[in-house]
Amino acid sequence: MIQAYAAHEPQGELKPFEYDPGSLLPNGVEINVEYCGICHSDLSMLDNEWGMTQYPFVPGHEVVGTISTIGEQVTNLQVGQRVGLGWFSHSCLVCEWCVAGDRNLCPTAEATIIGRHGGFADKVRAHEDWVLPLPAELDATTAGPLFCGGITVFNPIVQMGIQPTDRVGVIGIGGLGHMALGFLNAWGCDVTAFSTSPDKEAEAREMGAHHFVNSRDPKALEAVQSSFDFILSTVNADLDWDAYIAALRPRGRLHLVGVTPSPISSQIFPMILGQKSISASPLGSPTTINNMLSFAARHEIAPITETYGFNQINEAVDKLRNGKPRYRLVLKH
Amino acid sequence: MIQAYAAHEPQGELKPFEYDPGSLLPNGVEINVEYCGICHSDLSMLDNEWGMTQYPFVPGHEVVGTISTIGEQVTNLQVGQRVGLGWFSHSCLVCEWCVAGDRNLCPTAEATIIGRHGGFADKVRAHEDWVLPLPAELDATTAGPLFCGGITVFNPIVQMGIQPTDRVGVIGIGGLGHMALGFLNAWGCDVTAFSTSPDKEAEAREMGAHHFVNSRDPKALEAVQSSFDFILSTVNADLDWDAYIAALRPRGRLHLVGVTPSPISSQIFPMILGQKSISASPLGSPTTINNMLSFAARHEIAPITETYGFNQINEAVDKLRNGKPRYRLVLKH
Repeated sequence: MIQAYAAHEPQGELKPFEYDPGSLLPNGVEINVEYCGICHSDLSMLDNEWGMTQYPFVPGHEVVGTISTIGEQVTNLQVGQRVGLGWFSHSCLVCEWCVAGDRNLCPTAEATIIGRHGGFADKVRAHEDWVLPLPAELDATTAGPLFCGGITVFNPIVQMGIQPTDRVGVIGIGGLGHMALGFLNAWGCDVTAFSTSPDKEAEAREMGAHHFVNSRDPKALEAVQSSFDFILSTVNADLDWDAYIAALRPRGRLHLVGVTPSPISSQIFPMILGQKSISASPLGSPTTINNMLSFAARHEIAPITETYGFNQINEAVDKLRNGKPRYRLVLKH
Repeated sequence: MIQAYAAHEPQGELKPFEYDPGSLLPNGVEINVEYCGICHSDLSMLDNEWGMTQYPFVPGHEVVGTISTIGEQVTNLQVGQRVGLGWFSHSCLVCEWCVAGDRNLCPTAEATIIGRHGGFADKVRAHEDWVLPLPAELDATTAGPLFCGGITVFNPIVQMGIQPTDRVGVIGIGGLGHMALGFLNAWGCDVTAFSTSPDKEAEAREMGAHHFVNSRDPKALEAVQSSFDFILSTVNADLDWDAYIAALRPRGRLHLVGVTPSPISSQIFPMILGQKSISASPLGSPTTINNMLSFAARHEIAPITETYGFNQINEAVDKLRNGKPRYRLVLKH
């Protein structure tokens, strides 16, 4: 039996919940959860914001732990090995996207907390294709958020072909944005933080920003017109997208990883004249995650976390819901 | 003196108009106009749709002709040579974009019909940097539209890295779209034409389409969900962009070269899940135009044109404004 924490209704309290995971699949892996990050999408699912939550609902998809059991066909992982598990827990391995290595684009990819139970538990299971060894150089205490928040902002850097010579901006210096600053700084870029919180400037600079723009100040935004090759928006908010399109240089790209409440929109003329793009992306493939883990280890990039015991789980969820965590919350057994 | 045709007010008739172009600049080139295409942007400027027209206004930026005079510093062109001139007539040559070869992205690039007189005339002038030799294999009668309409649809194929293995769609089978079908077919792609005119199907297939979708039929659009790597919209209309985003495969791109009346917009979730992009582009650089001309010559791609004498100029403009030219209008001396 697995001892988990589940919500039984939208916005419900997380309560101890026991379930029988059945027999382990031949390609299955069972992980002893040591740490599990809390991601904003855990909240969205808990609250059934996306209309697809099944209750009882066990959140948790930023897992770090050690392998307790492996299925009989698993050959590339060992019991006792320290691993991570993120948003995805299985891909089909046979569709054209899986075959090409883009398992994150597999149309039938299984998400760790959709239609199954996640990592707010003593154990969690997944298929071997998404259970990834944690490099020894990474601190297990803080590594969990890399597997969802981290790869969400690292993946577009890879996919969109960001170059070290690029001038880049990050909108929103929170759970996602603070990791993006670190990655883009280490990538070699000239990095600007856009934040509505001027009090975050010193921290943003420590995390990797070379410049800071108060995004509530229209004049500050106007002053950086035609400045950026790439702007990564990490916020779940509707912004003045035309102002950010104007902040792009010719050939520039505005890229979104946050789910905005309204459709994204832009005047067409500035996009035509400057050959500009708007794009978005999901989490990365196992290969991109592995590259991110090596890159984070080599450049000593780690999420900044606050740690809560699993016995403080509702307090932690409340902090994410109502407080301003700096910057990422992790539950610990 | 140059004998031209000018409008003196928005939507005004084009009337004979003589002007003194002054002395030729050291890097200037004067062209004896043989042919000049009529482009939709000539109409937009004639009607002052973009609020930047100065009257008297001489349209015309799809010029084919022979060089009558060259400035004293012009070394790469000769008198008598047959050349083309398109939307741009000068770039600064010293900004970072010009230096990189992207003269079309030069922020101070001069347009042939903005703040100066265009090619609806016996002669037109431009700086040598945008006067491009016409390959002998191309038919001068029909080549004019390549210099604006043609490069508008050829440029994104190059800039967006379209591959011969891509499945592509073209929205709008008109002055721009019919050339896009030819280019993309010769590029090696699997090509679908989207049109609101089912009676264009046979013609679209002749021009290079392998498939035809009646874009007024929501079921036909739904049937091609997740089908395209690249969709090029050539229309100046607001469409159901979400339906076209849905028609893209993962990693797909919706690219616009038509000026839509309203901002372009899209739901964000489908873009995130499928790593999709929306982009736009202006006309191409001299290098891209030269590559287009060679490509068109090699693959025998030519605009389909209707030819009018310059003495029928108002009739031709009216045909573009109210009729349905198939597919591009060219004025002839």
